[in-house]
Amino acid sequence: MNGARDDEPRGLRRMVRAALREDVGGDDVTTRLTVDPDRPCNAVLIAKSDGVLSGVMPFWMVFDELGADVDIKTVMVDGAPYKKGDTLTDFTGLAQPVLTGERTALNFLQHLSGVASLTNQFVNAVEGLPVRITDTRKTTPLFRALEKEAVRHGGGHNHRHALYDGILIKDNHIRAAGGVTQAVHRAKAGAHHLMKIEVEVTTLDECDESLAAGADAILLDNMDAKTMREAVKRGADRGVTFEASGGISLANVRAVAETGVHVISIGALTHSAPAADVSLEIELPD
Amino acid sequence: MNGARDDEPRGLRRMVRAALREDVGGDDVTTRLTVDPDRPCNAVLIAKSDGVLSGVMPFWMVFDELGADVDIKTVMVDGAPYKKGDTLTDFTGLAQPVLTGERTALNFLQHLSGVASLTNQFVNAVEGLPVRITDTRKTTPLFRALEKEAVRHGGGHNHRHALYDGILIKDNHIRAAGGVTQAVHRAKAGAHHLMKIEVEVTTLDECDESLAAGADAILLDNMDAKTMREAVKRGADRGVTFEASGGISLANVRAVAETGVHVISIGALTHSAPAADVSLEIELPD
Amino acid sequence: MNGARDDEPRGLRRMVRAALREDVGGDDVTTRLTVDPDRPCNAVLIAKSDGVLSGVMPFWMVFDELGADVDIKTVMVDGAPYKKGDTLTDFTGLAQPVLTGERTALNFLQHLSGVASLTNQFVNAVEGLPVRITDTRKTTPLFRALEKEAVRHGGGHNHRHALYDGILIKDNHIRAAGGVTQAVHRAKAGAHHLMKIEVEVTTLDECDESLAAGADAILLDNMDAKTMREAVKRGADRGVTFEASGGISLANVRAVAETGVHVISIGALTHSAPAADVSLEIELPD
Amino acid sequence: MNGARDDEPRGLRRMVRAALREDVGGDDVTTRLTVDPDRPCNAVLIAKSDGVLSGVMPFWMVFDELGADVDIKTVMVDGAPYKKGDTLTDFTGLAQPVLTGERTALNFLQHLSGVASLTNQFVNAVEGLPVRITDTRKTTPLFRALEKEAVRHGGGHNHRHALYDGILIKDNHIRAAGGVTQAVHRAKAGAHHLMKIEVEVTTLDECDESLAAGADAILLDNMDAKTMREAVKRGADRGVTFEASGGISLANVRAVAETGVHVISIGALTHSAPAADVSLEIELPD
Amino acid sequence: MNGARDDEPRGLRRMVRAALREDVGGDDVTTRLTVDPDRPCNAVLIAKSDGVLSGVMPFWMVFDELGADVDIKTVMVDGAPYKKGDTLTDFTGLAQPVLTGERTALNFLQHLSGVASLTNQFVNAVEGLPVRITDTRKTTPLFRALEKEAVRHGGGHNHRHALYDGILIKDNHIRAAGGVTQAVHRAKAGAHHLMKIEVEVTTLDECDESLAAGADAILLDNMDAKTMREAVKRGADRGVTFEASGGISLANVRAVAETGVHVISIGALTHSAPAADVSLEIELPD
Amino acid sequence: MNGARDDEPRGLRRMVRAALREDVGGDDVTTRLTVDPDRPCNAVLIAKSDGVLSGVMPFWMVFDELGADVDIKTVMVDGAPYKKGDTLTDFTGLAQPVLTGERTALNFLQHLSGVASLTNQFVNAVEGLPVRITDTRKTTPLFRALEKEAVRHGGGHNHRHALYDGILIKDNHIRAAGGVTQAVHRAKAGAHHLMKIEVEVTTLDECDESLAAGADAILLDNMDAKTMREAVKRGADRGVTFEASGGISLANVRAVAETGVHVISIGALTHSAPAADVSLEIELPD
Repeated sequence: MNGARDDEPRGLRRMVRAALREDVGGDDVTTRLTVDPDRPCNAVLIAKSDGVLSGVMPFWMVFDELGADVDIKTVMVDGAPYKKGDTLTDFTGLAQPVLTGERTALNFLQHLSGVASLTNQFVNAVEGLPVRITDTRKTTPLFRALEKEAVRHGGGHNHRHALYDGILIKDNHIRAAGGVTQAVHRAKAGAHHLMKIEVEVTTLDECDESLAAGADAILLDNMDAKTMREAVKRGADRGVTFEASGGISLANVRAVAETGVHVISIGALTHSAPAADVSLEIELPD
Repeated sequence: MNGARDDEPRGLRRMVRAALREDVGGDDVTTRLTVDPDRPCNAVLIAKSDGVLSGVMPFWMVFDELGADVDIKTVMVDGAPYKKGDTLTDFTGLAQPVLTGERTALNFLQHLSGVASLTNQFVNAVEGLPVRITDTRKTTPLFRALEKEAVRHGGGHNHRHALYDGILIKDNHIRAAGGVTQAVHRAKAGAHHLMKIEVEVTTLDECDESLAAGADAILLDNMDAKTMREAVKRGADRGVTFEASGGISLANVRAVAETGVHVISIGALTHSAPAADVSLEIELPD
Repeated sequence: MNGARDDEPRGLRRMVRAALREDVGGDDVTTRLTVDPDRPCNAVLIAKSDGVLSGVMPFWMVFDELGADVDIKTVMVDGAPYKKGDTLTDFTGLAQPVLTGERTALNFLQHLSGVASLTNQFVNAVEGLPVRITDTRKTTPLFRALEKEAVRHGGGHNHRHALYDGILIKDNHIRAAGGVTQAVHRAKAGAHHLMKIEVEVTTLDECDESLAAGADAILLDNMDAKTMREAVKRGADRGVTFEASGGISLANVRAVAETGVHVISIGALTHSAPAADVSLEIELPD
Repeated sequence: MNGARDDEPRGLRRMVRAALREDVGGDDVTTRLTVDPDRPCNAVLIAKSDGVLSGVMPFWMVFDELGADVDIKTVMVDGAPYKKGDTLTDFTGLAQPVLTGERTALNFLQHLSGVASLTNQFVNAVEGLPVRITDTRKTTPLFRALEKEAVRHGGGHNHRHALYDGILIKDNHIRAAGGVTQAVHRAKAGAHHLMKIEVEVTTLDECDESLAAGADAILLDNMDAKTMREAVKRGADRGVTFEASGGISLANVRAVAETGVHVISIGALTHSAPAADVSLEIELPD
Repeated sequence: MNGARDDEPRGLRRMVRAALREDVGGDDVTTRLTVDPDRPCNAVLIAKSDGVLSGVMPFWMVFDELGADVDIKTVMVDGAPYKKGDTLTDFTGLAQPVLTGERTALNFLQHLSGVASLTNQFVNAVEGLPVRITDTRKTTPLFRALEKEAVRHGGGHNHRHALYDGILIKDNHIRAAGGVTQAVHRAKAGAHHLMKIEVEVTTLDECDESLAAGADAILLDNMDAKTMREAVKRGADRGVTFEASGGISLANVRAVAETGVHVISIGALTHSAPAADVSLEIELPD
Repeated sequence: MNGARDDEPRGLRRMVRAALREDVGGDDVTTRLTVDPDRPCNAVLIAKSDGVLSGVMPFWMVFDELGADVDIKTVMVDGAPYKKGDTLTDFTGLAQPVLTGERTALNFLQHLSGVASLTNQFVNAVEGLPVRITDTRKTTPLFRALEKEAVRHGGGHNHRHALYDGILIKDNHIRAAGGVTQAVHRAKAGAHHLMKIEVEVTTLDECDESLAAGADAILLDNMDAKTMREAVKRGADRGVTFEASGGISLANVRAVAETGVHVISIGALTHSAPAADVSLEIELPD
């Protein structure tokens, strides 16, 4: 469990180090003064509510960074569902670094499992329907990759990763370009030949114009179900992808899915998921 | 609004740059292809629910980093309360960087205003009582300073910033040191002479032993109100600070405060606050 | 010309600084010992052969980093064609930093103008034909963005920027996935909904299978003109993009373009363009 | 082949990481979706033309960074000459990282082997003569150390590494100092006592003045062979080093060497060497 | 001895790397050209005067960074006292990296052992008295943590680490706040509940006011022994800590300690300790 | 005084920032809580003993980094001699950042002025003799450039900056190469043509062998004056530079200089100079 592993993302390693600098700095005074450096401990991670795991890699990386010499007895896997009361993992290690890293490790795991768990509720709500539940770009700054992975762990799909790997033309782009048709044409002329063009619309007229201009995908923004259904119908035979966004909740997501849209994108998955409730119980053998 | 300002935290500037690398990378393809570089825009930030502002500095820093040449018409101030429908700020700037930075700027502001707003609800709930509502170390990794500031913006106080600037002896430290008395004595001998010593206890016996050992503060972990009241009474005449933690909600926080504790610390302030609901409306003049 | 500008890419600024650390380190001994710090100079940049300009921004950034206090008399613009003997720019500035930065500034400008100039020759060779000349990923490490921009300055288009913003399935991906059809299906299932799928083929059979599997684009690798023409014909009615690559030279590029392919990608644009021949003539007034 | 090695330059490791961030970013989408993570592969590197190897260390470092678990069957050595058709190396490894890293690894190897190969042609052209073929400071920014090493791999020598480790007084330094004599004297007074002083001259008069002022080396800039021969003669008995530069080609380098100069420096070695033509053939066993 | 160790401070590793970049850069020319890479050596570190060791970790880290493959025969321990002529350590390793790293390794060890040795003299001077000898914030920039550790190695204690982990109100803070009482009250209201408040005073009146305002500690600045004794007496029964500072030397430190102060802080420990005199003798076996 | 200046070394700016992170971190708690952000102050820097100034640039940079809005009334210049009681500078600025930065600014200035002052004593001791007093590589890690500049400010010269810009062959290099002659020849063959070769010797025989091998400079290590005089005589007519090192003190430096050596290098200049005694007196107007 010690030393840099070759198959882990370097960015994540750097992030874990920054998180430890933030919470530990040069010195966990309390632990340094009260715990003997050679003392071992056992630790058990217990779920306090149902959910889906995410953040396993940064969790272990925290202890690895601190030299905790962890020996994992029960392996945790990202994407695994769990029930309240489950033992998520248990491990032994040196007490000093385990106590020092506990909070930072949990801060990662609880936030990301919170995202995976909320995503999973949305995915379950549309079970059986041919639709993707996706995230948006409404992520916690610096957590884009981790939160998008957590969405996948929860059974969701990802939308574009960022502004650089997908084209989504919104109302202001349209106005700036002088209309839907011009905006789509400019995007097609300038983008590399492997990018599709999506247009955000709020009315059926805009939808029609986008289809006519050759959009590859249409985002239906805050539309009612009936209008969405009609929009989907109009683009059905052209292989166009339809995405619904805006005002989606667990209460209405299935109804939205039943309109026939292919993608439902939900900001709350990443910006408003409460932390998963878990607890690390540490024991120092006498 | 352009260029690095001398009184801003450098760490925040770096964080904003990292957030822009994450969301923009080298290229906002859509905006580059559809919006003319010289085109100006107006933007208005509208509140969609009540709350308290936080994150004003990173919000503006995003546009500054992108060279948006922003001219602020209505100034936003951290800590200001707002109502649904309020105009939080409005400004003009170059359309390209405003459109490119919009999402990142909002990701900061919505998360931090979410923390400030939730904190403010707790603070209001104990109005008139001599108690501090504080955060914990359960913060989003890399957001410690921002979230702790947001707690202050919401009217709360901060607990220790990190492991390096305060001593809090928990059960495992006690066990490792061989008892409460030994743990407190080791901490006093090793810490510099400007640090107080806090001990976490779950029973009145532990509380008594901590007081006897010379603890400067006592954290009462998940105790019922009656026991807390008794604990506070026992330390009253020694100038000891009492802190309550664990299981605090908006429903019970006032009752906890009424036990006479001096500090109530709440993890949810920072790990489970939903994003504040605000919307940036951008207009491009013809 | 001094201080960081808001609309310049930060990565480029860092790159220029690294280039100066590399060539100057802490001390241009010669210039420090022989040139008075307050002494001004005039400098004129002369073309020694025909070409197209690229690298104007890093050129100026070098002098800006060194505090040269440059005053530009003749503005250079990326993408501008020039003839042997032309004055590309002339400027005044402090002699010490101009002499210290000269080599680094030219190292950027000559390499990038070399790329733009070679690209321009290919673009001219297919003039009038409906085809894009594009780069590949065969770029100088760390120069991807600059070289791709130089290709645009020379009149070319860009292919995908990197592995993260476009899907190109090659023979080994096909074999690993168990066939063209499986590879395309796996890519469509896993990619976000704004990515097109391109498949590299070497035979018409593979081309047919790719078309049947729903590929959005086909890369024809090292095919003869006749076979390419046939491939293009088979996909013509499906809106599929055809790309030719491999063994393209100035001698044969027009023939390749005449097969009807939409894109011709050429590694040599970035990996084998000779440096543009220019000379900076500096004068110190008495 | 995995993990950081102690004897490798840290700067190179950072450069390889930056190159991978540039080309892979967070995700090689195609490979992730089509190739199974546990799948092994064989790879063979074939020369498509004659040359001399350079860049072996960054080549392997790319795969090491990606955790490819490479097992090298045929060892490549920097500086080794090769013929068209030679197998340069073959190795096994995990297919995912080998496919992901292939392009970046080749971008390093092809550029640096291009430099070594061109250098080697110049070195061969002066075989038997007592002269050094050296590089200049006309290197690709950030590639100074690698390209200078490639020059040595090709049998060449290095000139000074940068502005900080050698003094070369050019015409503008002379003018700024008030003449050759003053420039040389100022350099001697200010430089530490282990640095030699070189002066660039274009006429025999300047050469004479430099010799008289005590220059340790003279750079003969763009002189004809006869004048160079005369210059060398005048400094012969003083232990002065003569360097020729400017307008050197494979066609004239031997004639230049025969003038008796000790050093011939050639910018094209590093700024205009075409990429070496090699091909990595990867096979995935069924 | 090779590779990053998990229990070492990352900041120290980075510092050692920076020190090597500073002294070695890309190339120890002399050693590269004169010493065979595979050649081993023996090295013995000899004390040339009495002292106390500090800096053992950066010493070894230098050789580890350079891949010296060190085998330590005699272990050095921070805090160990030594006599002139003692062998502090001896080890074998590769000659190239040992010669290259020797100076940097010694630069760390000699400076830090100098600090530990001077501290130890002050600690010995107050032997038997109930007082702490501590450092101040007058440390070499970037060496705060190392020098504070060296003080502990020499038997001293640390004062607050920095401005962020302790409150010390000086004359200007008092004036700015409007008086001692206001300053102490503002500090108590704003600081987190685990921080003590120290006030610097120069007269007994200020001392009295500080005690009355509730200061937890008092710094007696440049007072004579009699006044200090009186000050200590006035705060004796309140559990207040008294610190003496200013003008402390080996000649007067015992007299100061005898006034009853609890802490004596001395800037010279870190800003004026001469380098410890040690010598590394390297032998290359034939 | 605010914002990055173009002619300052970037490395120094980074160092000052690191020093502030070290001493201030996120928060100077005391100053934040007791001093009003808008409050101005006057500050006067007073010399408490004689010396020579160095470190003026990092001193001001500290306050600039903190946004102190400093207005300098009396300009300080590196290299200026001063007497006890002199006002070195006085300035106004914002009280908060001036108080926060005071210690860090002084830590730079006192250390570097200490180096300049000690150097100046050695320079004065050899006044009138044709010899350079130089530093060595025995510098504080990360302070090489600053301390070498301080040596120049004190009237000294610099030795080579680091291992990369000068060749100094010591006993172990000689042994490893198989003798003085071989070592010198290997160095001449491998070094670029602008580097001189220095050899360290302890006997006249080694000196003779070095001269015969063509050494450009000779370091006489710990020799008595008579032997040094003889050594210098033997190399006098060859233009060889002689350097004395080892055991040089203010008491014996003039005698060493009188042997005729050209360079005297002294480690103590940088590793054992006590901090200059200066005091910053800050006043807050009512």
